[in-house]
Amino acid sequence: MSSALPSPIALSLGDPAGIGPELAAQAWAQRQLAALPTFFVVGGARIIAGAAASRGLDVPIVPISNPNQAATAFETGLPVLPLANDEAAGLDYCPGQPSRTGAMLALASLEHATQLALSGAASSVMTGPIAKSLLGKVGFNHPGQTEFLAQACNIAAQDTVMMLAGPHLRTVPVTVHCALASVAQLLSIDLICRKAAVTDAALRRDFGIKHPRLAFTGLNPHGGEDGKFGDEEARIIAPAIAALRARGIDAAGPHPADALFTARARTSYDAAICMYHDQALIPLKTLDFDAGVNVTLGLPIIRTSPDHGTAFDIAGKNIADPGATIAAIKMAGECAARRN
Amino acid sequence: MSSALPSPIALSLGDPAGIGPELAAQAWAQRQLAALPTFFVVGGARIIAGAAASRGLDVPIVPISNPNQAATAFETGLPVLPLANDEAAGLDYCPGQPSRTGAMLALASLEHATQLALSGAASSVMTGPIAKSLLGKVGFNHPGQTEFLAQACNIAAQDTVMMLAGPHLRTVPVTVHCALASVAQLLSIDLICRKAAVTDAALRRDFGIKHPRLAFTGLNPHGGEDGKFGDEEARIIAPAIAALRARGIDAAGPHPADALFTARARTSYDAAICMYHDQALIPLKTLDFDAGVNVTLGLPIIRTSPDHGTAFDIAGKNIADPGATIAAIKMAGECAARRN
Repeated sequence: MSSALPSPIALSLGDPAGIGPELAAQAWAQRQLAALPTFFVVGGARIIAGAAASRGLDVPIVPISNPNQAATAFETGLPVLPLANDEAAGLDYCPGQPSRTGAMLALASLEHATQLALSGAASSVMTGPIAKSLLGKVGFNHPGQTEFLAQACNIAAQDTVMMLAGPHLRTVPVTVHCALASVAQLLSIDLICRKAAVTDAALRRDFGIKHPRLAFTGLNPHGGEDGKFGDEEARIIAPAIAALRARGIDAAGPHPADALFTARARTSYDAAICMYHDQALIPLKTLDFDAGVNVTLGLPIIRTSPDHGTAFDIAGKNIADPGATIAAIKMAGECAARRN
Repeated sequence: MSSALPSPIALSLGDPAGIGPELAAQAWAQRQLAALPTFFVVGGARIIAGAAASRGLDVPIVPISNPNQAATAFETGLPVLPLANDEAAGLDYCPGQPSRTGAMLALASLEHATQLALSGAASSVMTGPIAKSLLGKVGFNHPGQTEFLAQACNIAAQDTVMMLAGPHLRTVPVTVHCALASVAQLLSIDLICRKAAVTDAALRRDFGIKHPRLAFTGLNPHGGEDGKFGDEEARIIAPAIAALRARGIDAAGPHPADALFTARARTSYDAAICMYHDQALIPLKTLDFDAGVNVTLGLPIIRTSPDHGTAFDIAGKNIADPGATIAAIKMAGECAARRN
């Protein structure tokens, strides 16, 4: 027993036909250059071996029967913890050709990785990209992985926060996967306060920021220009900021969204709290496309994921950039170290 | 008479208490380094002299009585064409202290600069930043300078297009100064087609792009994910793109907005047609904050302006970056040369 070693990071496979498996292999190949902590993949040994070969990588797959074997195994190869349905799936690597069997394997990997993080056998989970529409056909009835994780952790989805973090910027969308037309009616003082409070706590606990500074966007162009086009700034966002300040949270704004992501403005906050998905995602991906990490805040476990999808169209072609996966593994390790 | 010389660019002063006057002086000081074409300012000689002094610049003001004197005057100083109410205004330079008299001077400068461009005495107009709320109190009843210019040119505001252009990106918002909650209902196939057609024509005529490639964003996160959150992509944007393609315009999309502004994606189009203000302005300002130019397309005259406001808070402090003003002057000159 090597109880002094920190627990390793569990990687869920993601869809076997997407770019998740090849990026896991690529990350192991770059483990020394990128100074990555120990990680292992849950399931899909044959898939990963095929994916590694597609990139011309020499990545020995080392089967482990327990996460505590990962540290030793990691020195000679990529540790993979087999899944019960791994062999039954009998999947070969078919990049760009998603299947029902593949979706079932992706789901089993996600479920088991989550359990390992909850039990403490893994320090954290980094989830590979899945195809939600395919998972829906094999019994996954959540809008996304975040909502699945919230339920698995017995947390209300409302009290989890999706944060996007890159080298230049951290952003949080208050509303996420909803029509743009419904954003204004979904916003409330309570929702903004909940998301901001979770963000503030996580920046302290997991990101080592003693006094997090939160900057809030407005909803409307120019922040509504004193109510000329939209009043959500005065009616909802400013009162939320005032309430947060009264609780001791360093909250500033609302600022016109288009002015909040310049190099100069970015020095004034640790995270930008944005009112909707694209307001948060556009600046992040514009600046940090190949290094953006999606972190779920508010869970008892640490969860990160690369900020991209399955990219079926480029899977197996040795094109996919491993930057975001490497950054997501690194961030999971850093957050876990801070919690210890 | 030197009829062989191209007409000079007319600069409107902008609000005398904002950063417009100092940036006009700074641009003249950098005219050789930046290879700027001849320009002159309409009105505000005393203001500009004070603004230049605030930046420690040696910028002689050269009064001219006709734009055709600008080229010769430009060699020794910044040409300024006096306004009738220039002396009456009797304004001294009071940076950061906007006034009713200042707003009247800004308006007179804008009106006269526009007339000079319409008559051909000026090749184009570069408008300095104004404070709309102040102008409203002196009889300016337009949402912005663009709408004023449209009316002065007898063009329906709907048929003008605001394009933001920087070194990395050109974007066009289909809807502009309206509440975010009203964007979805303002979008229509007709509106998108009108804006895109004006953009296509201007990229050919004024920007020298023979076969402009237009990329369209979706409205909703992930482009609505097949209608799961919002159907405007299928109902409005895709049909507009199809209609434009049928007219021979190279239109592509709709693309998820957050993926359209990465370095890789930006190589695939000449302008991104965006559905609302911040979707267009966030990536532009994130990438090109100090070099963003606002160009009004669809007018008989050429009009550019720096993509920033009056910035009363930093006026007179030698802080304001002249990059956008210099870029706007340069772009006006380039567009004018292409029309000739």
